[in-house]
Amino acid sequence: MLACRFDGRRVRVDPAYPDPRPPPGEVDIAVRLAGVCQTDLELVKGYMGFTGVLGHEFVGTALDGPFEGRRVVGGINCVCGRCDLCRRGLPTHCRRRTTLGIDRRDGAFAERLALPEANLVPVPDAVPDRAAVFAEPLAAAIQITRQVALMPDERLVILGDGRLGQLVARVFRAGGLAPTVVGKADAKLDLVRRLGLTAVRAHEADPDTSADVVVEATGTADGLAMAMGFVRPRGTIVLKSTVADTAGLDLAPLVVNEVTVVGSRCGPMDAAVAMLAEADLDLEPLVTAEYPLSEAVSALAAAARPEAIKVLIRP
Amino acid sequence: MLACRFDGRRVRVDPAYPDPRPPPGEVDIAVRLAGVCQTDLELVKGYMGFTGVLGHEFVGTALDGPFEGRRVVGGINCVCGRCDLCRRGLPTHCRRRTTLGIDRRDGAFAERLALPEANLVPVPDAVPDRAAVFAEPLAAAIQITRQVALMPDERLVILGDGRLGQLVARVFRAGGLAPTVVGKADAKLDLVRRLGLTAVRAHEADPDTSADVVVEATGTADGLAMAMGFVRPRGTIVLKSTVADTAGLDLAPLVVNEVTVVGSRCGPMDAAVAMLAEADLDLEPLVTAEYPLSEAVSALAAAARPEAIKVLIRP
Repeated sequence: MLACRFDGRRVRVDPAYPDPRPPPGEVDIAVRLAGVCQTDLELVKGYMGFTGVLGHEFVGTALDGPFEGRRVVGGINCVCGRCDLCRRGLPTHCRRRTTLGIDRRDGAFAERLALPEANLVPVPDAVPDRAAVFAEPLAAAIQITRQVALMPDERLVILGDGRLGQLVARVFRAGGLAPTVVGKADAKLDLVRRLGLTAVRAHEADPDTSADVVVEATGTADGLAMAMGFVRPRGTIVLKSTVADTAGLDLAPLVVNEVTVVGSRCGPMDAAVAMLAEADLDLEPLVTAEYPLSEAVSALAAAARPEAIKVLIRP
Repeated sequence: MLACRFDGRRVRVDPAYPDPRPPPGEVDIAVRLAGVCQTDLELVKGYMGFTGVLGHEFVGTALDGPFEGRRVVGGINCVCGRCDLCRRGLPTHCRRRTTLGIDRRDGAFAERLALPEANLVPVPDAVPDRAAVFAEPLAAAIQITRQVALMPDERLVILGDGRLGQLVARVFRAGGLAPTVVGKADAKLDLVRRLGLTAVRAHEADPDTSADVVVEATGTADGLAMAMGFVRPRGTIVLKSTVADTAGLDLAPLVVNEVTVVGSRCGPMDAAVAMLAEADLDLEPLVTAEYPLSEAVSALAAAARPEAIKVLIRP
């Protein structure tokens, strides 16, 4: 099949990549549409030491299993069900997990992929592919609301106007919250304003340690330092960016101001699909471009441009 | 009066430092005994840009005010009562606070000091000076139990066998908890074992991401990285060390493992005094040495030695 693979050094589209051979309990899925995530861009720089087919955001058609013939999206963590963390009800933290397109499991930038049955969520007809493809990052945004109690009268700040920041803003708005988004790109901040939310350019924002909750979704090493400037004493920072380089970062304010930092990763796919079906998320403006799978290398390059939000790949 | 002052460059004992002149609402206190804290050692390296009389751990005799003639300890944060954080019930985070011996307020390594009446807690007769002097750092240890719900069946790890780690171990034990202390010094780990708790040398400990709560009390820049090794996915790290240099620190595990980091600083002085009166904390073995105030410079040097735990200064 056609697949976009990373061999540890370079990305290329392979016209003769082996078809997935799902073991018992897993489902063969024909990918309809896939999305490029910041993590994909990190993986091709060496993050996680991944090699194989890239991509973990997708909507596809199940070719067998309980949802045969239906459109599905899927959770990316494939778990053992037996380790201490699975038994504890924390399957996304399974100690033996593989992760679609991220960790020892071929991903979604391909004509087909395999995932366990239990990972799949069927997509209602009312949700078009170009919305369903957002299910995985939308779930990651919803995860914040599962980890931190957010109140309508609180000052909520989202740092980052990119892929994830835009989705977090939409999830908060769907929950009746009114966050302020701090970003860098006028065009992206305008998309936030279209939602009826406040958007501020980073260099014009006043980090006055008054926010109750700050979501750090900048994808940069500076994000946490910025968040410490915005959050109030005893407030909460939700950390979404996997920051591997903290050179020069002063963490003393966390202690002095008794701030809570909550790391946040994958979220509930079923809740994401329900929100796609029920809420007016205005996702279409987030799609920067759509590339055929044969041009996946160009899609990754496009997703890395500063003006890009969500770049899609269609097999 | 005699006072140990830091002028921004060096520490010296001044035989003719001006007496405190407490404004209305503040109390003149004759210091009976003071303790040296890691923060004092940081201040003389330039932390906070402090100049003035050092010291914030003390027991003294109130010379006037509602507790006149009685022994008192005192909270170190002197607050405005009017800012948004004071009104919110977070006075230790007052935006206009001064802090005893740390921030724009002369401290306890002196014959006398001044503090607001509201900061003082009287000390019961049953608590000797050499125990009462631990009230402030003990309150900081108790603060952890106010911020994080700790359960007897949880795996609790304290990183650090020094001044603060020893107190946290004692507070946890007094609360019926059985933490494991990870440290470097055999003599200090033996003090933990005397309490009936488990103590492990850092290089022999297995950071197997299984602890529910890890208290980072190492006072070093490595502490947070170490804590990320011990804490389980969705577990909690309580951060006590004010770490200003994070070069080379990889924070990605916080996000991937969805860890919560809780910064923790000052605690409730009244609860500390109550615990000193009621619990068997076995604090006497923590006193490394007692110096007269005239030799405060030597006391600071002694407190900086690796084998030191608590060094006391007596005016």
